[in-house]
Amino acid sequence: MYDLIVLGGGPAGYNAAERAGHAGLKTLVIEERALGGVCLNEGCIPTKTLLYSAKIYDYAKHGADYGVKFADASIDHAFIVNRKNKVVKQLVSGVGAKLKKAGVEVVSASGVIKERNADGFVITTGDKEYVGKQLLICTGSSAALPPIDGLADSLKSGFALTNREVLDLQAIPSTIVIVGGGVIGLEMASYFNSVGSKVYVVEMMDHIAGATDREISTMLQKEYAARGVEFILGARVTSIKDKAVSYEKDGKTVALDCDYALVSIGRRPRTAGLGCENIGLKLERGAIVTTEYGKTNVPGVWAAGDVNGKSMLAHTAYREGEVCINNILGKKDRINYNSIPAVIYTNPEVASVGETAESVKEKGLDASVQTVTLKYSGRYIAENEHGNGVVKIITDNQHHNIIGVHMIGSYASEIIYGAAMMVETEMRVADVQKLVFPHPTVCEVIREAMFL
Amino acid sequence: MYDLIVLGGGPAGYNAAERAGHAGLKTLVIEERALGGVCLNEGCIPTKTLLYSAKIYDYAKHGADYGVKFADASIDHAFIVNRKNKVVKQLVSGVGAKLKKAGVEVVSASGVIKERNADGFVITTGDKEYVGKQLLICTGSSAALPPIDGLADSLKSGFALTNREVLDLQAIPSTIVIVGGGVIGLEMASYFNSVGSKVYVVEMMDHIAGATDREISTMLQKEYAARGVEFILGARVTSIKDKAVSYEKDGKTVALDCDYALVSIGRRPRTAGLGCENIGLKLERGAIVTTEYGKTNVPGVWAAGDVNGKSMLAHTAYREGEVCINNILGKKDRINYNSIPAVIYTNPEVASVGETAESVKEKGLDASVQTVTLKYSGRYIAENEHGNGVVKIITDNQHHNIIGVHMIGSYASEIIYGAAMMVETEMRVADVQKLVFPHPTVCEVIREAMFL
Repeated sequence: MYDLIVLGGGPAGYNAAERAGHAGLKTLVIEERALGGVCLNEGCIPTKTLLYSAKIYDYAKHGADYGVKFADASIDHAFIVNRKNKVVKQLVSGVGAKLKKAGVEVVSASGVIKERNADGFVITTGDKEYVGKQLLICTGSSAALPPIDGLADSLKSGFALTNREVLDLQAIPSTIVIVGGGVIGLEMASYFNSVGSKVYVVEMMDHIAGATDREISTMLQKEYAARGVEFILGARVTSIKDKAVSYEKDGKTVALDCDYALVSIGRRPRTAGLGCENIGLKLERGAIVTTEYGKTNVPGVWAAGDVNGKSMLAHTAYREGEVCINNILGKKDRINYNSIPAVIYTNPEVASVGETAESVKEKGLDASVQTVTLKYSGRYIAENEHGNGVVKIITDNQHHNIIGVHMIGSYASEIIYGAAMMVETEMRVADVQKLVFPHPTVCEVIREAMFL
Repeated sequence: MYDLIVLGGGPAGYNAAERAGHAGLKTLVIEERALGGVCLNEGCIPTKTLLYSAKIYDYAKHGADYGVKFADASIDHAFIVNRKNKVVKQLVSGVGAKLKKAGVEVVSASGVIKERNADGFVITTGDKEYVGKQLLICTGSSAALPPIDGLADSLKSGFALTNREVLDLQAIPSTIVIVGGGVIGLEMASYFNSVGSKVYVVEMMDHIAGATDREISTMLQKEYAARGVEFILGARVTSIKDKAVSYEKDGKTVALDCDYALVSIGRRPRTAGLGCENIGLKLERGAIVTTEYGKTNVPGVWAAGDVNGKSMLAHTAYREGEVCINNILGKKDRINYNSIPAVIYTNPEVASVGETAESVKEKGLDASVQTVTLKYSGRYIAENEHGNGVVKIITDNQHHNIIGVHMIGSYASEIIYGAAMMVETEMRVADVQKLVFPHPTVCEVIREAMFL
């Protein structure tokens, strides 16, 4: 009998369980794969490990611009994959240690919701049953795999890959077709482009990077197009088989021969087979419906992370898990989805928070949009020959507070949290003007933009 | 006849003049050297240009740890210095363009305060006189050069260098002795260590990096000691001559042979010969005394930047200049010296804001000090083999707000502005807990620390 059973040990689940354990709740985590979830095992962390190696290799290619000459640089992909595994292993064991320290029990099994009884919620792992007074569902998401001709067989044969398998390729493909130009597709395109593959990105929409500010996603696309990535937009993939990806565009069908096809067209909440129906949980398009407090329609059942289908970001999951625990503990808490930052770890990086030029139009907000070159930063100029990064600031015209910040350029990933603070705390232009930013930095362009 | 005369075109002066010009004040800047001041011409920007090249070279050295192999890497110091000059030239001309756009006049001359008359303050450049209703003094600072035996001659012969000359060396010295282990000394030590010089740092105090949190400055010292920099602390330099720097320590005198000696023991406000006495300006130890509003003791005379001897940082100067203009324009404004960040651009970088473990003790504040490893960050682990960076958080025990943040590790320079926002806005631990930081980043360790 547990105070809380957490289904799934990814960012939402492990963090929530840790907080719950420290708060004194008798807590159980049930996770069928490794702790850390998709993020740690086959998402954020492994990709960043690969991308960092690619970045070093990129430095070597452009070193001459900065007075550093490399006679011969080579990349050892197998080494990079091994190192990635080592990093992941270290972090997974770190999560385990944190849970242990918090007194959280962990069961390595697939948990299914069996029923609600007088004691609470009954979870079965097949051979065993566990009862929790409250239940937190954090089963995450898996790669969306639509019924494209040949895809199922190609996944079996290893020609088609998801975010999981692509990270374990032992050699650099000479050609890879990436189906889906969202964050995962773009980060992998960036990696394979850097290490020498011919990369195609086939995207159904007329733009890449999903809801990213369009001016910035267009800049990113141009940057990678100039480096040789071929973007095929507004194209519908019709088959993935026989070492080729075929797509239809403008009435014509084209086949792209390739060594591999990476399918990264989106993520689907993992609720199938979970037994949601056994306790009457409300779903919408496969996602568990939650409030900003993390509540589901069933009292005592909470959900956090990708399984609610809202934001599909690890750090959202992380915070949602905390929100659930705080509310379980009687400390009212909610998440503000308007101030959640997002990063694409390409090179240059893209980072965003809040409203975009497009979203303000769509919502009919009275807002100003301003795009400022990062060349206002001496550091940016010092470190970026041929760089053309920008920061884009969206401000509310009535209250003059910052409602959106978008960047493409160096350090964007580490800068955006401060911008998210501005959005979250409804900081006004005049407030930011009074802050002192260190010089010389790239971040100080955000402040400078407040004077333009 | 001007509304405002600005003496000095560095960060305090050019920024203040630009804001004043845009606000409609008829403004004149008098600068004897290049626009941009020490920061742009012989400080922040040129050093960052050099350090970025060194960083790329460092990447090459450690690339194998990340699966990137370099058969042979070499550094072209002369190219780097030329590139630095190009970057500086671009930025200086940018400052000029900004002033022009703001309608600010610029005179290239050395200005001296002659007198105050009925119209305002009279500034003479020798051949010409200018009158301003108000006067803003931003003459900055110069390298402190104490009467060390042989120093004057060594500066003339080119054996001893200040921050100015060191940036124009055309070849990498085989041995350099750096006198003074403050920010400038450490950044140059970092550069020359990276590019292959034997580097000695001789410091009078028993620690490097001035008022930097001691735990962190000690970590930085260990890091560079491991890379071969020799630190000689608690040592008094007795002579700089005959291709050697001699120092006295523990009663013994030692001579270090070297190609060059860099003297970086501090900066002195530039008030000598400025004519401060002609209008009765109050000085203290050579610095113009100012309030947090930028006021001097003489109504209508303001001072900003290094010349006030307070913080000696470009971004402080920048903000102080704005504060003066706002107050001149009747918009009350003040600078909060407690929330000004500082960065040392070594590799790893060091960044700080607010109280340190030492300052809270000294002031008798009721505060908690917590040091957290950056290994809580998956990104840090992915990108830092053998890294041991930390973030240190100082919180007030009564109000539970953040009063200091100190970091050593990657991206610290671009992360610290958000921490400065926390200090400036008196954010509490509970407030930071509710913010969402992007994952995976190094900055998220700041948030994680709020739960430990």
